[in-house]
Amino acid sequence: MQDSHRTAVMPDCGTLGILGGGQLGRMLASAAARLGLQTYILCPEENTPASQVCTASIIADYTDEATLAKLAQACDIVTYEFENVPHDAAAFLERRVPVRPGVRALAVAQDRLNEKTFLRTIGVPTADFVAVSDRASLGAAVNEIGFPAILKTRRFGYDGKGQARINGPDDLDAAWQAMAGAPSILEAFIPFSREVSIVAARGLDGTVRCYDASENRHSNHILSQSVVPAPMSAAADRALRDIAGRVLTELGYIGVLAVELFEMPGERFIANEIAPRVHNSGHWTLDACTVSQFEQHVRAVAGWPLGAPDRHADAVMTNILGQDVENWRQVAQTPGLAIHLYGKNIARAGRKMGHTTQLYPLTNGPKPVKVGP
Amino acid sequence: MQDSHRTAVMPDCGTLGILGGGQLGRMLASAAARLGLQTYILCPEENTPASQVCTASIIADYTDEATLAKLAQACDIVTYEFENVPHDAAAFLERRVPVRPGVRALAVAQDRLNEKTFLRTIGVPTADFVAVSDRASLGAAVNEIGFPAILKTRRFGYDGKGQARINGPDDLDAAWQAMAGAPSILEAFIPFSREVSIVAARGLDGTVRCYDASENRHSNHILSQSVVPAPMSAAADRALRDIAGRVLTELGYIGVLAVELFEMPGERFIANEIAPRVHNSGHWTLDACTVSQFEQHVRAVAGWPLGAPDRHADAVMTNILGQDVENWRQVAQTPGLAIHLYGKNIARAGRKMGHTTQLYPLTNGPKPVKVGP
Repeated sequence: MQDSHRTAVMPDCGTLGILGGGQLGRMLASAAARLGLQTYILCPEENTPASQVCTASIIADYTDEATLAKLAQACDIVTYEFENVPHDAAAFLERRVPVRPGVRALAVAQDRLNEKTFLRTIGVPTADFVAVSDRASLGAAVNEIGFPAILKTRRFGYDGKGQARINGPDDLDAAWQAMAGAPSILEAFIPFSREVSIVAARGLDGTVRCYDASENRHSNHILSQSVVPAPMSAAADRALRDIAGRVLTELGYIGVLAVELFEMPGERFIANEIAPRVHNSGHWTLDACTVSQFEQHVRAVAGWPLGAPDRHADAVMTNILGQDVENWRQVAQTPGLAIHLYGKNIARAGRKMGHTTQLYPLTNGPKPVKVGP
Repeated sequence: MQDSHRTAVMPDCGTLGILGGGQLGRMLASAAARLGLQTYILCPEENTPASQVCTASIIADYTDEATLAKLAQACDIVTYEFENVPHDAAAFLERRVPVRPGVRALAVAQDRLNEKTFLRTIGVPTADFVAVSDRASLGAAVNEIGFPAILKTRRFGYDGKGQARINGPDDLDAAWQAMAGAPSILEAFIPFSREVSIVAARGLDGTVRCYDASENRHSNHILSQSVVPAPMSAAADRALRDIAGRVLTELGYIGVLAVELFEMPGERFIANEIAPRVHNSGHWTLDACTVSQFEQHVRAVAGWPLGAPDRHADAVMTNILGQDVENWRQVAQTPGLAIHLYGKNIARAGRKMGHTTQLYPLTNGPKPVKVGP
């Protein structure tokens, strides 16, 4: 493994540390390299997607303080590719090196109760919600929220994990058992017509830049496709940008985040989740924008000016899940289809192995979607 | 350093070896990673542009056979980023692992005499040329070629190095001395109106794909800008594609190469050089095409189907040389300008530190050029 050398030509940030070794870390590291930065990856596993493309990788637990101190020493800035970074690790690093986005963004996004409370505070609509700490408080919560409702663990949920739907009183015991005693939140069920997300960045100087919103389709609770542009009125587009800008600014956020929203009849949007990181629904920016979400995040955390988030094409991003990756040769033959594979060598069912982006001539409105690959 | 693990999902090529650690190797390694491949870099220097983004790097001389054997063992395919790979190293590797493009392409491109002879043989126009082995044969050569002429070393010339212009008899002694005894070639001086180049690929199945030709501007013999599309008639465009296709096919070439040509009045093109590798004048493809020259090269050598070489934008690529890299903050603020920095930490005068690509709306004809950054 080579040592990183600070570059003379990049006074603000020569070396970027990234917590997490998955595909988001991989694409962040590649984007950082394109800007001339060195990258250190810290994660507990060997031979991860990110470790294949970084300057150097450190294999250790996130709570190993000696390693964290070494990382802080080696890097000018530290960021992360997943929101479940242990709070103490982020706080330990933050005393030694700038961590962007910071501990506050993590504290808000790691906990659904904090997240929804924050969104309400800044005037962003959410589903009705009540904290649940035991079986008795679940009973009180359903009295307030009504049926149907969704019980979710406050922390560590993703891709539909840690969730249970409650259609009536008979579901309460099973739902609470599914939480395995974890502090939870009961949310009113939202009969949404579609999910959209908006990926946006805030720079060190407070500048906010939003990518165009995408419409997201899921399969088995896992993102399957993001379509850009998501057809919507100019007023709805402005509303989404306003929400993203408010979240970024009120958090004092530095970097890229995504806000996932449910759409209700009448183009009403209800925020579901904040992801304090680059996001699967922004992968289309790699091929349809000059500055991708990954480069934008690196620019933000490294103190660079943000790039223009303009699209040069319409795009449909499709995740390659599990054994679908075996169709790579056919996928590679499709004109206009950009391929990204993550270097994972075991294709478990549902595992994100890569993604494709099909580009179409630029429009500003709705367009037919080719389902593929 | 981590070991490379063959991926189960890429039967044809899981690990790509690259000889050479410069920016071309860097951009090849990043493109290979995007396709899910692992990369090994072999080069004699530490902390090179390519070693910062590869799966693993080996620091050794190209002639170290124990290392070459190890590389052949670790990799499914070996390629290179520069044409001066020692012939014996390529031949040693080729007995153990597919080397693409192969030893034949290297033998032709490494030696200007072989190169021009090959081009003539396949009917591609070149400047008149005569081999020169000593001062006496130089005298005979000028009698045949006339003045003005250019004396060049047969091997290891680049960016105008190893060349001397001969305007009359008084220049002969100095020109021969400048060759330092190296086997040379005398070429007729071509009073060209501009230089263009065409970057093209040939796949394992013999398919040929050409990118649009670029017009190249030099400063102090170093490429400064490539402009795409290079304004020209449809007939000239066809002629260039035909030349590239003939070179690729007649060499039995696998991978990307560039042909540099001089244009004479009447849209007559005279081939100057073949670069058997990805080429600086093709860097614009990173930002203006879905499949860049780097990905195309990886696809070709790894046995993948070639990608479509279509442009989605007009482009002006500008090299960032030496201390110009210090203007990165200003460059980063220019909308529509894509930045690539190579991770070099010493900005010597004339050194290629990075490049930018300014994108413009797609046209098919000539367009105004913004000189920048």
